[in-house]
Amino acid sequence: MSPMETYRSEAEYLDALRERSAPPEGFRFAVVRLEFRPAEKETVEPLRMDLSAALLDEPTESFAGVFTRNRYPGAPILVAKERMKRGRSGGVLVNNRIANVCASGGREDAERVASRCATLLGGAERSLFVASTGIIGWRIPVDAMIGRLEELVGRLGVDGPFEMSRAIMTTDSYPKLRSRAVGSGRIVGVAKGAGMIEPDMATLLVFLFTDVCIDRPALQRSLERAVEVSFNTVSIDGDQSTSDMALAFSSNRAAQVAPEVFEDALTRVCRDLALDVVRNGEGTEHVIRVLVESAPDEVVALRCGKAIINSPLVKTAVCGNDPNVGRIVMAVGDYLGSSGVPVDPAAVRIAIGDEVVFSDGVFHLDPEKERRLAEYLESRSLAGSQPGYPAHDRTVDIRVDLAAAGGTGVVAGSDLTHGYVSENADYRS
Amino acid sequence: MSPMETYRSEAEYLDALRERSAPPEGFRFAVVRLEFRPAEKETVEPLRMDLSAALLDEPTESFAGVFTRNRYPGAPILVAKERMKRGRSGGVLVNNRIANVCASGGREDAERVASRCATLLGGAERSLFVASTGIIGWRIPVDAMIGRLEELVGRLGVDGPFEMSRAIMTTDSYPKLRSRAVGSGRIVGVAKGAGMIEPDMATLLVFLFTDVCIDRPALQRSLERAVEVSFNTVSIDGDQSTSDMALAFSSNRAAQVAPEVFEDALTRVCRDLALDVVRNGEGTEHVIRVLVESAPDEVVALRCGKAIINSPLVKTAVCGNDPNVGRIVMAVGDYLGSSGVPVDPAAVRIAIGDEVVFSDGVFHLDPEKERRLAEYLESRSLAGSQPGYPAHDRTVDIRVDLAAAGGTGVVAGSDLTHGYVSENADYRS
Repeated sequence: MSPMETYRSEAEYLDALRERSAPPEGFRFAVVRLEFRPAEKETVEPLRMDLSAALLDEPTESFAGVFTRNRYPGAPILVAKERMKRGRSGGVLVNNRIANVCASGGREDAERVASRCATLLGGAERSLFVASTGIIGWRIPVDAMIGRLEELVGRLGVDGPFEMSRAIMTTDSYPKLRSRAVGSGRIVGVAKGAGMIEPDMATLLVFLFTDVCIDRPALQRSLERAVEVSFNTVSIDGDQSTSDMALAFSSNRAAQVAPEVFEDALTRVCRDLALDVVRNGEGTEHVIRVLVESAPDEVVALRCGKAIINSPLVKTAVCGNDPNVGRIVMAVGDYLGSSGVPVDPAAVRIAIGDEVVFSDGVFHLDPEKERRLAEYLESRSLAGSQPGYPAHDRTVDIRVDLAAAGGTGVVAGSDLTHGYVSENADYRS
Repeated sequence: MSPMETYRSEAEYLDALRERSAPPEGFRFAVVRLEFRPAEKETVEPLRMDLSAALLDEPTESFAGVFTRNRYPGAPILVAKERMKRGRSGGVLVNNRIANVCASGGREDAERVASRCATLLGGAERSLFVASTGIIGWRIPVDAMIGRLEELVGRLGVDGPFEMSRAIMTTDSYPKLRSRAVGSGRIVGVAKGAGMIEPDMATLLVFLFTDVCIDRPALQRSLERAVEVSFNTVSIDGDQSTSDMALAFSSNRAAQVAPEVFEDALTRVCRDLALDVVRNGEGTEHVIRVLVESAPDEVVALRCGKAIINSPLVKTAVCGNDPNVGRIVMAVGDYLGSSGVPVDPAAVRIAIGDEVVFSDGVFHLDPEKERRLAEYLESRSLAGSQPGYPAHDRTVDIRVDLAAAGGTGVVAGSDLTHGYVSENADYRS
């Protein structure tokens, strides 16, 4: 597990994002902000919504998507699944503030915005995706949104991925943008989401743009595999939101590269974005990474890691800098017992940092080790770090060796803090 | 869902417990308190442990047990599984403070305490169970415990189930004891455990004593079914502890009753104890009950209810008196999506209190209803109630109709509060 980079100030972080932010060839971006009053709740001030567009100069055959399995998918997910049946797409429109989930007329609202924008761009064959994040159950302010589309289209090329990464935020405490060179082209990705911190909008939105030439089936395969080992390995409350969506588009303007080279670069962009998501949020005081090794297979490794990282008892212990190793063993034992996975519990080895705390079926604890573990947790705390940028190179590393064969997986999550309760109990826009 | 009884003071509650506390015929109880210093951690003051005994005058063939499926079972669980193969048992010894889980030599320690006590009582054929709750990973102070067994045996009959219900507490904020008349006999039960509040000792211990004549297979069947619809329907962090154990003993001194009459009484005792567990704990500000109706079967009803009640986002919203109905729908959709249960999402109906908030696939929300729901949650808050007794007749009732056939289930849990984080992040003995 390699260290994460860190930034000394919000300005330094935003500069780093701007540096990564040049759009790949063949894409143009735009952002507008609008105000509206929701029908569902009286508000003192009108609410604000950011509407952003990431559009291809020419609709492309190379696009791919991965979507939530939640049985109450938002209207944008329903629209997207229909778009996936088409041959080409011209890009995506994104709004924050309202997620457009199970709202009466929500699908029609989404289609109206998409088709009006497509018309402005030159026709329905633009086949635009839409994505929404925010409050569940409310209607999007469709007239206000449509009223600003002309301005949005007029701004295309003025804004870039950097502006989009900010415009898709809800309670995110900083924008998330990553890019990577691949052959003569690039991959740029933006994401919206926050680890154990998100209120009604646990949504994860991911948009990936590349000019590297790739056909549609290859892009879909690479996206699915990259999401599996990146976003699917971070803990987001253990809940799968109604609106989770990852989309990838290629303009095919740059030279093709070997498939594994492309997939490796896409995976790195996704992994970096996923860690940015976990590190996000005022509630997070520790980022926890769990490496599970020697599992029967990779799926077991990831599930076992998630069982640890989703346990409220483990999360609160880490929050309190309490090396409560019993809770880790309990979480592993609960997972092994309920899954029936063939692992010998007595062969399992667990370490926190460099300290082995469990092996041969028994704990290895003494007052001196207890002190060292508490110091380790304290040294990995983010307490006192500033919001507005991911100040965290510090992680709490837990290693679990299942001694059952060659499967390996790393998952990451955040601790459970007073900040989490405050944000989720006290917040709603 | 019927209302729960309430008490105006701790004294009134303890009086109610004493009233229920007469042991069934053929049982005797005893409690002693001892002090020790653990080998694993330096402590300023010695730690205290309560050791209690619930013993039959004559070993019985009528005993039954249900145990955790965690793959790191505590030593008492391993001992209990061996005892279940024997023909008779003389009762159970229980200690708090240390759970005796994966401690080096833990099984031998447990056997030593049990066999020394059996010898004092007249022989190994007493076949005593042991139960431990508390810190995971530490060794029990076996010499200090054995040193007090003579005194414990001498006190048999001096103490009763009331004293035992207090001696098995760890962070429980009040003792839990329930009883019920059955024919000419009685069932008395004590439990240890706390809802979303428990630190490293999420353990649930349940001990049931009856003089009603019943054979061993019938007692085992009844216990399994009673646990399934009581303790298995309350949320304990979503974790299954290393030490969960429910034991039942009959002295067979009172007349037999119809099997369904006995099972009904046992189930009621277990249900009352399970709600006492949920209501326990300073961290709990709301008790949430979820009734799932018209599920494909009872298992789906219970699992769907648990998906709601284990969602940190639902828990924190209720904590904040925020009628965040989107989070409930998200939890239901996540469960339906990941389980693949054949339910039509659009046919599902969800109500909070008396307000229908979701049906026909869309939310039904307006500013007036939003206000009423917030008032409802506030009126169900336990804020300001005193610890030391279950002051809560107030519950937040959520009803989910899956419109998929005749399965029904009720689950109960608590909200996720600052008190929960404090107790679990800041506490360790």
